[in-house]
Amino acid sequence: MPDRPSPYDSGLDCNSANYVPLSPLGFIARCAAVFPDQLAVIHGRRRYRWAETYARCRQLASALNRRGIGKNDTVAVMATNTPEVLEAHFGVPMAGAVLNALNIRLDAAMIAFILDHGEAKVLITDREFSPVIEKALALVKRKLLVIDIDDALAPTGKLLGEMDYERFLATGDVDFAWRNPGDEWNAIALNYTSGTTGNPKGVVYHHRGAYLNALGNALVWDMPQHAVYLWTLPMFHCNGWCFPWTVTALAGTHVCLRRVEASAIYAAIAEEGVSHLCGAPIVMNMLLHAPEELRRKAAGRAVRMMTAGAAPPAAVIEGMEALGFRIIHVYGLTETYGPATVCAWHGEWNALPAEQTGALKARQGVRYHVLEGLMVADAQTLAPVPSDGRTIGEVFMRGNIVMKGYLKNPKASDEAFAGGWFHTGDLGVMHADGYIEIKDRSKDIIISGGENISTIEVESVLYRHPAVLEAAVVARPDETWGETPCAFVTLKPGASATADEIILYCRDHLARFKAPRTVVFGPLPKTSTGKVQKFALREQAKALGAPGGAPIKTG
Amino acid sequence: MPDRPSPYDSGLDCNSANYVPLSPLGFIARCAAVFPDQLAVIHGRRRYRWAETYARCRQLASALNRRGIGKNDTVAVMATNTPEVLEAHFGVPMAGAVLNALNIRLDAAMIAFILDHGEAKVLITDREFSPVIEKALALVKRKLLVIDIDDALAPTGKLLGEMDYERFLATGDVDFAWRNPGDEWNAIALNYTSGTTGNPKGVVYHHRGAYLNALGNALVWDMPQHAVYLWTLPMFHCNGWCFPWTVTALAGTHVCLRRVEASAIYAAIAEEGVSHLCGAPIVMNMLLHAPEELRRKAAGRAVRMMTAGAAPPAAVIEGMEALGFRIIHVYGLTETYGPATVCAWHGEWNALPAEQTGALKARQGVRYHVLEGLMVADAQTLAPVPSDGRTIGEVFMRGNIVMKGYLKNPKASDEAFAGGWFHTGDLGVMHADGYIEIKDRSKDIIISGGENISTIEVESVLYRHPAVLEAAVVARPDETWGETPCAFVTLKPGASATADEIILYCRDHLARFKAPRTVVFGPLPKTSTGKVQKFALREQAKALGAPGGAPIKTG
Repeated sequence: MPDRPSPYDSGLDCNSANYVPLSPLGFIARCAAVFPDQLAVIHGRRRYRWAETYARCRQLASALNRRGIGKNDTVAVMATNTPEVLEAHFGVPMAGAVLNALNIRLDAAMIAFILDHGEAKVLITDREFSPVIEKALALVKRKLLVIDIDDALAPTGKLLGEMDYERFLATGDVDFAWRNPGDEWNAIALNYTSGTTGNPKGVVYHHRGAYLNALGNALVWDMPQHAVYLWTLPMFHCNGWCFPWTVTALAGTHVCLRRVEASAIYAAIAEEGVSHLCGAPIVMNMLLHAPEELRRKAAGRAVRMMTAGAAPPAAVIEGMEALGFRIIHVYGLTETYGPATVCAWHGEWNALPAEQTGALKARQGVRYHVLEGLMVADAQTLAPVPSDGRTIGEVFMRGNIVMKGYLKNPKASDEAFAGGWFHTGDLGVMHADGYIEIKDRSKDIIISGGENISTIEVESVLYRHPAVLEAAVVARPDETWGETPCAFVTLKPGASATADEIILYCRDHLARFKAPRTVVFGPLPKTSTGKVQKFALREQAKALGAPGGAPIKTG
Repeated sequence: MPDRPSPYDSGLDCNSANYVPLSPLGFIARCAAVFPDQLAVIHGRRRYRWAETYARCRQLASALNRRGIGKNDTVAVMATNTPEVLEAHFGVPMAGAVLNALNIRLDAAMIAFILDHGEAKVLITDREFSPVIEKALALVKRKLLVIDIDDALAPTGKLLGEMDYERFLATGDVDFAWRNPGDEWNAIALNYTSGTTGNPKGVVYHHRGAYLNALGNALVWDMPQHAVYLWTLPMFHCNGWCFPWTVTALAGTHVCLRRVEASAIYAAIAEEGVSHLCGAPIVMNMLLHAPEELRRKAAGRAVRMMTAGAAPPAAVIEGMEALGFRIIHVYGLTETYGPATVCAWHGEWNALPAEQTGALKARQGVRYHVLEGLMVADAQTLAPVPSDGRTIGEVFMRGNIVMKGYLKNPKASDEAFAGGWFHTGDLGVMHADGYIEIKDRSKDIIISGGENISTIEVESVLYRHPAVLEAAVVARPDETWGETPCAFVTLKPGASATADEIILYCRDHLARFKAPRTVVFGPLPKTSTGKVQKFALREQAKALGAPGGAPIKTG
């Protein structure tokens, strides 16, 4: 070893010329400078160019700043996908503050809990949600500055706040000299988990992770500059998977959408030239079952759709591709800034039969470039499972797009990061080609006679039944087997099938012990992001009682 | 202000689950895991798939490690664009070491200086360069491990080293457990400036910057996954502008090339399906003036070419686009990991006449996404010049793709970073639309009767003259005016023009004081990267003497 320090370790330190904290805020400054006249945001008849959107974001930052909002202050937003929420993704952190976008399906008590727990100082709220927000504000223990979004496209609703958003903007300076965060580890956003049981947890994102996942999205999707992106995915859901920042980095166009409806989506594709959109499998299902005259609008356009959540059934992916959509399947969690893995496609797979490509595409795949580690491992020992496509383990992640932690919940953070890996709580397998496939949430998996049954596997068979529109499978208590699969099924309009027929169909396509022993017909309860609320179905299944022995059918 | 610390500042620290130093090394691990069977490298008949290339990189790292090479040790490479240099871009930093790729045009004394100054411990060298390397090694004051690249496609040449590269690889372990750098600020590469006067300076790159500029290239170029990239640009030049890492991140294919020749380039386009390449304007000129039967091979393929350096003449860009190439113009320096600005294109410019689009595209443009600051400012006060397209100032940059500094040269580093901005030494203007245009290197600009004359502006007019193949303009001392423009011109084969004709042509297209007063015909001396060696031309111009008064012609 040399006696002196290495020359690489001396006189080569950071300075303000060669080190700038990573932040997605620089993307909008660049975009506005380079493409000031290009269309940035479309919302009904409202159209903003990039120079205008940037000016509005700076005004928002300035207006917040003038009300004393700064570093580490929380600004909550309750809204659908309107220009105001997009602006908040830049304006709030430009003021140094932290954006807390609220799930619009939450009830007043939950909203009050989040506003208190997140210590929000400002609430920007759309008049559509005034009934629930009014109740929530009555419950909140803190005093908030309330600003109304008075969107011409909103249903009627009371204005609750001190002033509306446009008047608030007008109090700010379009030339506000915002600064990059002093530290790329500074918080940029706070997103509460859906909290199916107990209180939700506040997931904290930093500027570094938001910057990196914004670029990660563009990379895995070969997303070009000037893409036209439709906001079907809620911006309150993991900050719209970081796409507010991705689309802006690419100088694209954000097409807003208050309500996810097939007619509006197809209209945006045909009239605004939408090239990219994201959404849960429920959105694909909606597009797939839309009337023929709507579906025709997508033909020949090769619209790219990114989907994730509740493992999309292969049959739905196949159907969408047949319609002319190009589907990319990603997977992630609130704790990973949205998508963190992608089912990276191999050209040679295109030669396979549709059923096989659908099954390949239904896998959650491989890590994003910006995620550094991904494994399926034993939940206790963290020893990786064999890459055999069969052995179930927990999915673990490591990297710069893993959250800072849970706000004011060091115990939950420590548990989530135990052993130096993020514990996703999802169960999956590792295939021989290094692609992961999620089999279930830890709490969803069914253990029947000591055997694991993946509810997702059973659901994927149910989705292939010609009469089935949607399906969800949960455990039903059973005296003999411990648990057995219980299927909740919605039939396609006009279609019919009996529980027996469906059970027999499953037995033809699955190991016998995996076939449902119970089938319940009816609509499925869903969260705001389109995920089936399995906890509610589990309650229903439990209420059916715990028989033993022979198969039981209802419905 | 609250009495307690912000909840965002407590319990949300870095840990190994949520923080990993940024490094381009992760790209090859991902690529090899996801696309192991895809073609990674083509070199004549040698073809490697990604699994193989990754294994070879790990073997190289392991072999170096077994010879005691580790963190902050310098490994030099003297080679053309062969698979070995590409592998060194991963294998050397996987061992923790720093890659120092040498310019193959350097003489023995300069190579010896660099090996000593950079404290190289290993030299990997191609047999083509044995004559100069043998002399250099006789001059070097240190003992190096020398490894020969014994390429079947190389001209004959002595083997100088302890063993050849393949035997050295065989001493390493394909499963070597390399690690990410402990700190993203660790050095990854050392690149010496061309040092036209005095000793060259050693520019140090870090893992963070290499990672970011690798992604920056993909972003500005809409570069898709699986691009087929031809190595016309030397990998020893700013690490091939970071493309060894970019192309690997995109799971593309690297097509190697020992020698930049029109026939080989067109053959690679036609036979290997090359989609992307980079090169100095001299490469464009070579492609443009190739025989018609070669040029036909590029037709209809829309090959993307990135060019930079010595402001490409608009006429050359126009010619290339007419041939079917799509040109993107970037600009940067060794100190900025290669390209740091891009002439970002506006769709509406396509409607303009070719001459105008060529002129727009010849501008150096706007900052990369991953560069955070760019300005044209007064060299002393750092006050930005007006955005009028006329006022000349120095170009300044700030951001994560600015070098760590110059190795063992704190004085030069301090000067380069004075005022918290990187001083490029290039002179330019800021246009009203925020695009910069380089007018000259500080040392190249001509001051004639107190007026600044951009030599690049004069050259761009010379390039439009139908008989001119290449042109370079430098200052010639003059008793009356201080300096006057002196043009060095190479005519196209078979073409003819007199000095008078050329001077008159320039007077028709330029302000009179900017037209050359002297024209010298002959070949232009160039650096290995295709830049005209203006210092040599300045010496020639000086040797012509310092007249006063009337125009003077030679040649």
